[in-house]
Amino acid sequence: MHASQPHHVVIAGAGFAGLSVAHGLAGAPVRITIIDQRNHHLFQPLLYQVGTATLATSEIAWPIRHLLRRRKEVTTLLGVVDGVDTSKRELSLADGHTVGYDTLVLATGARHAYFGHDEWEPFAPGLKTLEDATAIRRRILLSFERAERETDPALRMALLTFVIVGGGATGVELAGAIAELAHENLPEDFRNIDTRVARIVLIEAGPRILPGFTPDLSAYAHAALQRLGVQIELGRPVRECSADGVQFGDQNLPAKVILWAAGVRASSAADWLGLPADTANRVKVEPDLTAPGHPEIFAIGDTSTVNAWHGKPVPGIAPAAKQQGLHVAATIKQRLRGHGQPRPFHYSHSGNLATIGKRSAVIDFGWIKARGWIAWWVWGLAHIYFLIGVRNRLAVALSWLWIYVTGNRSACLITQGEQRARAR
Amino acid sequence: MHASQPHHVVIAGAGFAGLSVAHGLAGAPVRITIIDQRNHHLFQPLLYQVGTATLATSEIAWPIRHLLRRRKEVTTLLGVVDGVDTSKRELSLADGHTVGYDTLVLATGARHAYFGHDEWEPFAPGLKTLEDATAIRRRILLSFERAERETDPALRMALLTFVIVGGGATGVELAGAIAELAHENLPEDFRNIDTRVARIVLIEAGPRILPGFTPDLSAYAHAALQRLGVQIELGRPVRECSADGVQFGDQNLPAKVILWAAGVRASSAADWLGLPADTANRVKVEPDLTAPGHPEIFAIGDTSTVNAWHGKPVPGIAPAAKQQGLHVAATIKQRLRGHGQPRPFHYSHSGNLATIGKRSAVIDFGWIKARGWIAWWVWGLAHIYFLIGVRNRLAVALSWLWIYVTGNRSACLITQGEQRARAR
Repeated sequence: MHASQPHHVVIAGAGFAGLSVAHGLAGAPVRITIIDQRNHHLFQPLLYQVGTATLATSEIAWPIRHLLRRRKEVTTLLGVVDGVDTSKRELSLADGHTVGYDTLVLATGARHAYFGHDEWEPFAPGLKTLEDATAIRRRILLSFERAERETDPALRMALLTFVIVGGGATGVELAGAIAELAHENLPEDFRNIDTRVARIVLIEAGPRILPGFTPDLSAYAHAALQRLGVQIELGRPVRECSADGVQFGDQNLPAKVILWAAGVRASSAADWLGLPADTANRVKVEPDLTAPGHPEIFAIGDTSTVNAWHGKPVPGIAPAAKQQGLHVAATIKQRLRGHGQPRPFHYSHSGNLATIGKRSAVIDFGWIKARGWIAWWVWGLAHIYFLIGVRNRLAVALSWLWIYVTGNRSACLITQGEQRARAR
Repeated sequence: MHASQPHHVVIAGAGFAGLSVAHGLAGAPVRITIIDQRNHHLFQPLLYQVGTATLATSEIAWPIRHLLRRRKEVTTLLGVVDGVDTSKRELSLADGHTVGYDTLVLATGARHAYFGHDEWEPFAPGLKTLEDATAIRRRILLSFERAERETDPALRMALLTFVIVGGGATGVELAGAIAELAHENLPEDFRNIDTRVARIVLIEAGPRILPGFTPDLSAYAHAALQRLGVQIELGRPVRECSADGVQFGDQNLPAKVILWAAGVRASSAADWLGLPADTANRVKVEPDLTAPGHPEIFAIGDTSTVNAWHGKPVPGIAPAAKQQGLHVAATIKQRLRGHGQPRPFHYSHSGNLATIGKRSAVIDFGWIKARGWIAWWVWGLAHIYFLIGVRNRLAVALSWLWIYVTGNRSACLITQGEQRARAR
């Protein structure tokens, strides 16, 4: 560190964790480089609403360099990280560039994972990026389009069967939204099929949906999903996904649309550092969120794991990623002031939220539990509050209000895919 | 035509022309099938704003079957037309389905064309679909991203050089919007490049831009574009497009982004019918818009040509397509009432509009000509007025107002493309 050159913090990943580091370092005597493989920050908690044609892509994503445009000490780079040279203190990018660092923050997130069955991905796409969401939307809407033209009753039913694998918050939210789409929004639009006969099947290997919630809220969500017409299958893991359907336990279910919400795998941060990872490929970091043996490297968010929630692992949710980012920023600032001792991170859990369609939700803040429409409004306000841009808060609020009042979903666009043939 | 089965009108294409036929037939004793290769109607006049990151895709497109949901006699099909059997009165689709008709309306539009140089398309994409627009947006934004990292000054300048081929309304609107993006919206976002040095070059083979307008309005638009920093090159046709740039006349211009707005080619309607076409592949229809020798087949909009504007060809613009659609609907209704004589179509021209950036426009309604900011507001109100959904009018108005007041463009998202690599 030269007097002429300020301390260089390199942040890999501009999700909730990475952006929070940058925000927490505002005013500190550092220069910052933030690198992401995409040009936009994504509000992942609402991604399922893009996938189910409620919100438009631009309502939940913002260009990273635009978010940081007033921070003249921050340089934003579009690039794919593919390695770390810890002895040279250099990050390498897939295009051959290298970026030197004084402090490195790895916040490169996770992708959905198939427990060793990557061959299922083409048949059961997951939901982590804007492209995932538009691909899932295309798959859902095209299945209705094909059913409208299909004359074979068995095939038509398979086209109208939607399977969601995984009963966590994402799976529950997808199932509720698809049920409403099929049973409430689309019936008027079709002539040859009745979209109300569509089957939405939520498969969870464990004994109940929403395992992170208390059993009574799980039971409430279970009943609320059933009222929306969702069929819930518990206790039997999926054994096979194919173009024709899904096998769970010993049952075969013909289905043309299968969505994957059952597990994630962290980015390759552990590989880059040559460090041990847990079964989900997460770096096991020290209590102060540094990589073992590398006090100048932090790994936070979905790419790492730490038992900092009263001895339990920190959950993979946005508030946890933000807290970690702010903690890292505070540690860096303290070090620059000459205080070198490790600062352990302690996670403070504010609660769990999940929505079931557009009329119900479950919230569990510990000191308060709620369910039903009051919980839905709390959920909605909390999400609008955390959206980044003023315009987007307004746009999302407008979209939701519009859908509430009219039942219309104007985001039902099929784009970029099988229907791209040029000649009409 | 059986007494038990109402007259079946099949409309191929749900653009302005095709949708107008459906609207004009409201209440008529017919059943209607409308077929399009996409599930959405697109408001093409604003497509350049999606391409230049001002509007989101869902603000200018609407699901066709949703637009027609209240019309119970209308069936919407997603499908690619690939032929007409005029003796059987059947339309064939690319997936092997056939659809019988009593009256057929071909309104299958046009694509951009390269005057026999289809090999230029990968280097100089055109703008006709939502995917075209997001691809162009991605190309423009990625070029700035690459320039930010590029150290070779010549290559960096090529990355910051944007060429638009074709000086009609689309070319002028693209050039103005890119100039504003580079010179006004983006400078704050980048650290290593000054986006204000970006060159925007509009190449027109003819003697002036906006040839459809009066010479004084062309001259005004020319000067207004130059004030925005656009370089205009007249009188030299493009002779070569490649990954490295463009050759026009005997000049080579290194440029990494080339956009094509120079010409269109009609869909294959003439082939399907085995009828002669003009140089742009348009069916030459009868004065009543029927295909020669086939009074039960109409061809309208960009896929046909007719000298119905005081002896001149009808221009390829949205109001002309709408007028043709309504004329065809009126003809069909009259025939059903037993009046069989041909009804010649007469085009009524209300005017030309083109916008130059977000502060100026030129309008020529014949009885009134205007330019500058007043024209811009007329242009904006006219376009908002013609947008289909109430929510979209509001959303577009909000987007524009927001951009006007703040200069922000939150739709600067790079999606679906080269940056899709999974691992960070």
